[in-house]
Amino acid sequence: MFKNLFGKQQATTLESTGPADFPALETAAELLTAPSAMLQLSLVEARVVARYMRPRFIREGTVFIREGDAAGTGFMALVLDGEVTVENIVVSRVSPITVTVLGAGSMHGELGLIDGLPRSASCTASSDLHCVILTREAMLQLLKDDPKMGAKLMMAIAMRVAQRLRDNTQKLKKYVQLTKAMQQEIDHLMPG
Amino acid sequence: MFKNLFGKQQATTLESTGPADFPALETAAELLTAPSAMLQLSLVEARVVARYMRPRFIREGTVFIREGDAAGTGFMALVLDGEVTVENIVVSRVSPITVTVLGAGSMHGELGLIDGLPRSASCTASSDLHCVILTREAMLQLLKDDPKMGAKLMMAIAMRVAQRLRDNTQKLKKYVQLTKAMQQEIDHLMPG
Repeated sequence: MFKNLFGKQQATTLESTGPADFPALETAAELLTAPSAMLQLSLVEARVVARYMRPRFIREGTVFIREGDAAGTGFMALVLDGEVTVENIVVSRVSPITVTVLGAGSMHGELGLIDGLPRSASCTASSDLHCVILTREAMLQLLKDDPKMGAKLMMAIAMRVAQRLRDNTQKLKKYVQLTKAMQQEIDHLMPG
Repeated sequence: MFKNLFGKQQATTLESTGPADFPALETAAELLTAPSAMLQLSLVEARVVARYMRPRFIREGTVFIREGDAAGTGFMALVLDGEVTVENIVVSRVSPITVTVLGAGSMHGELGLIDGLPRSASCTASSDLHCVILTREAMLQLLKDDPKMGAKLMMAIAMRVAQRLRDNTQKLKKYVQLTKAMQQEIDHLMPG
């Protein structure tokens, strides 16, 4: 069931960690309950979710989620150990793109998990990375096996996405203000 | 169960339509399956969801979702008949705020449904409005009564929110470009 989760290209970079799976999943469950995951699951619930996840080892330097990628996007990754670099848009006329480094407990790619559409941002392993992934197929299986738990996870992920949408809307509003101020500057500087 | 859904102030503007509930709910089910709702539910599924909704009549001119409102935000509205005016942010240095009029089948306020946090935008009834509302309490009840259906609805709403987040991220990227171009203009115009 978990064999063909990724296209060939990605399969080479996302290796299974093999027999060390169980401790990885317990760590995953613990991290799913951490504030950084923003999922509001109990440890018992998180353990159920973790059973649908698969450990992956990602080598330093791998772009494991690439902006614009349209194939094999239906998965989310939870970092167990190591660091991930992501680009963020902030409201600034000088340096609007900042680089953030996220560690254990950070989650990446939940939009792809929800809709399987092309990636809207990139995530790079800035160190060797131990993580677990939840694929869209596995999540649909969880929804079938345990609808109550599946619904709880969906709700938790929806809340995360809602928070990101709220944050983005605030940034957009600030960009509207910034553009207005800059236009005034331009009008002021224009001759005549 | 549906008595204290809103604060006193809102209760005066969101009146129940009373005995005409059933046809309203059938219309709601049909509209929930329409492309404009972006929910991908079958009619049978939509009818289950509609049973958890309540018809409301909203008078022309009522701001039924108000930006910044922190209380009574845990509901989503589906328009059955009438028009709703919402403000949208677009990427423009001249007129970044546009007004959009949405009619039957449009859904409003799903972020509040998900997280119950303060409203990030306003919705105004620009004509007398017949709609149905789904409250957070009713959705949680649906999740309890019928987890499979509840999960399906959560997934559908998460997909809508994911789409909005993707749209917003695109706009943010364009604003970054616009700000950059404007800064170049300013640098060019600056004396010295």
